[in-house]
Amino acid sequence: MSTVSLKLDEIYALAYDTMIGNGCDDPNASALADIIMRAERDGSHSHGLFRIPGYVKALKSGKVDGNGKPTISKKSAAVICVDGHRCFAPMAQSVGLPILAESAEQMGIAVLALKNIHHFAALWPETEYLAEKGLVGIACTAYMPAVAPFGSSEKLFGTNPISFAWPRPGKTPVCYDMATSAMALGDIQIAARDGRTVPPGTGLNANGEKTTDPSEIVKGVLLPFGGYKGSAIALMVELLAAGLIGEQFSFEAKENDNGDGGPARGGETIIALSPAIIAGDGWEKHVEGFMNRLSGLKGVRVPGARRHNNRLDLGPRSINRDLLDTIYGLNS
Amino acid sequence: MSTVSLKLDEIYALAYDTMIGNGCDDPNASALADIIMRAERDGSHSHGLFRIPGYVKALKSGKVDGNGKPTISKKSAAVICVDGHRCFAPMAQSVGLPILAESAEQMGIAVLALKNIHHFAALWPETEYLAEKGLVGIACTAYMPAVAPFGSSEKLFGTNPISFAWPRPGKTPVCYDMATSAMALGDIQIAARDGRTVPPGTGLNANGEKTTDPSEIVKGVLLPFGGYKGSAIALMVELLAAGLIGEQFSFEAKENDNGDGGPARGGETIIALSPAIIAGDGWEKHVEGFMNRLSGLKGVRVPGARRHNNRLDLGPRSINRDLLDTIYGLNS
Repeated sequence: MSTVSLKLDEIYALAYDTMIGNGCDDPNASALADIIMRAERDGSHSHGLFRIPGYVKALKSGKVDGNGKPTISKKSAAVICVDGHRCFAPMAQSVGLPILAESAEQMGIAVLALKNIHHFAALWPETEYLAEKGLVGIACTAYMPAVAPFGSSEKLFGTNPISFAWPRPGKTPVCYDMATSAMALGDIQIAARDGRTVPPGTGLNANGEKTTDPSEIVKGVLLPFGGYKGSAIALMVELLAAGLIGEQFSFEAKENDNGDGGPARGGETIIALSPAIIAGDGWEKHVEGFMNRLSGLKGVRVPGARRHNNRLDLGPRSINRDLLDTIYGLNS
Repeated sequence: MSTVSLKLDEIYALAYDTMIGNGCDDPNASALADIIMRAERDGSHSHGLFRIPGYVKALKSGKVDGNGKPTISKKSAAVICVDGHRCFAPMAQSVGLPILAESAEQMGIAVLALKNIHHFAALWPETEYLAEKGLVGIACTAYMPAVAPFGSSEKLFGTNPISFAWPRPGKTPVCYDMATSAMALGDIQIAARDGRTVPPGTGLNANGEKTTDPSEIVKGVLLPFGGYKGSAIALMVELLAAGLIGEQFSFEAKENDNGDGGPARGGETIIALSPAIIAGDGWEKHVEGFMNRLSGLKGVRVPGARRHNNRLDLGPRSINRDLLDTIYGLNS
C-alpha cells in the first residue's frame, strides 16, 4: 500500500479545508476536523480521513446541513436534548457534551439525547471527554440495519456500537468502543477483499445459512457478538439510542435515507455518572486497587491502552495515497 | 426427580416462615418471601426456594442481619443511596426502588446505589418493577470472582449479571437478566453432575487450558460470554456495581467473606430512565413499531416472554422434594 506522511496539523487542515470547501461553516468544519484528526492520531483509521468522502456525499446531496446550528432544550436538571438540525454528530456533541458534564457534576447522573444528527464517527471521543472530567461515560448509537437478532436471519439491528469510559485521574481512562456485531462491517469487507475466511458465528449468507466466507456475508447478514447475550446488548443499544430519545430505529433510518452513501439520520444517547457524588471521597484509590489487579493479569489488555499508546507519538502518520487522492479530488 | 406440588401462596408462606424462624423480622422476611415466590412463579428456579439454605446460613453465621433497617440518603434529586446495614438485597430494594422510580419520573433519569447488602437473587424483579411504571431499568451487580477477563486464566470478575427492562404499557415489558459469564455457574455444575460436555469457550481447567468438561471448569475458571467484547461488558458491570458506588469489587467480596456459603456482601447499581420525559409524547407507539418488527422475525424470542408466559399459570408449582426436606429441616 502506497502511503503519504502527514503531520497531525496537516491532517486537521486537510479535513477542515475539505469541509469548508464543500459547504460547512467554521463551527461544523472545526468539530469534524477535530474528530478526524484525533481518530488518525489514535490509529482509529476507519473513523478518520476514510470518512471524508462519505461526509462530502451527504453535504452534496443536501441530506446534511453543513451550517446546522444545534439547539438545546433541558427537560430537567439531568436531561439535555440537542436537536442537531441535520448537522454531523461531532457538531452536536461539541454543543451538548459540556452541558452534559456540568449537569452530571451537579446531579451525579445526567443524560444527553442527540437527535436529528448524522453519525459516522467513533464513539470513544464522547465517553473519553467525560472520563477526562472525572465522569463515567456510556454512549450508544443505532445505524442502518446490518445485524440479524439472535435466532433470525433477517437484518434489523444496526451494528449498534456501545462505548464505555471510566475515569482514572492522572492516568488515561479505561475506554472501549465496540460494535455489538460479531465483527465490524469494514473488517468483513477487508477480509473479503483479501480472500480470508472469518470465524464461525460472524454472519450468514443471503440464504440465511452459516458461512465463514466474508464475500457471502456481505450479501447476507452479520450476527451479534456472543450469541443470544450479545443480541440482548444490541437490543438494549437500539432501544436506548432510538426509542428512549424518539429518534429513528435502524430500520427507519434505512427507510428514510436517500442512499447517497453518507451517514443516515439517527440519534445518540450519552449517559454520564459521577463517582465523586455517588461513591464519594476515596473512589479513585478504591478503583485503582481493582485496576492494578486487572492490569497485572498475564494476557490482559486494558481497553483503550493501545489507542492511548498511539497518541503518545506526536509525529506524522502514514495515510493511504489513494484515499488522499480521492480527498484532494473533493477539493478541486 | 421426586417433586411436591405447592401453590404460590404456600411457597410464599414457606419462605416467609423459614425466614422468620431463622431470625428475620417481618419486613425482611416479607421482602425475601416475595422475591422467592415470584422466582418460582416465573420458572426462575435457581433464584427461588433453592436459595433458602444459603440465606439461612448467612443469618446463622451472623454475616447478614435479618432485622437490618436500610437507611436512605439522597445525594441529589437524581442520586439515591441506600445503606442496607447488612440486610438481604430484596429488603434494601423494597425501600429504594419506589424512591428511584419517583426520582426518574421527575428528573427523567436517576440512579439507585445499594450498598452493604447481600445479593443472592435475580435482577429482573428490580428492572421489571421500573418497566411496569413506564421506566427503562438497567441493573447490575458484581459477586465473588468466578470469571477470567479475556486473555487471562485467572478469576477476577464475578459472574456479573446485567438486567435490562423496557416498558410496554398495556403489555409485559421486554426484560432480560443474564450473567456476563459464558454460562451460569449453576448450569455448569448441573452439566458436570449429568456427565454432559459444555460448548468451547465456556471455561478453562485448573491449568488455564480450554476444556469442554464441566467438572474441569468447576476446578478452573469461567470465561466471559462473547470473547473480548463480553469481557468488556463484564468489566463495565464490575465498575458500575462496585467502583461507581464505593462497594466491594468481586475480589474484595471474596477476601472479606466468612465463607459460610451464604451471599457475600456487595453492591447493586440500578439506573432508571423515563422515555416520557426524554423522548416525549408518542414514545410508546414509536417503540411498538420496532417491537412488532422484532417479534415478527422468524426464530426470535423477545426477552422475558418465557417468564411472562409462565406467570400466567396461577396453579401450583412442582418443587424438588429433597430441597423441600432441606428447608423443612431449617424450620425444626
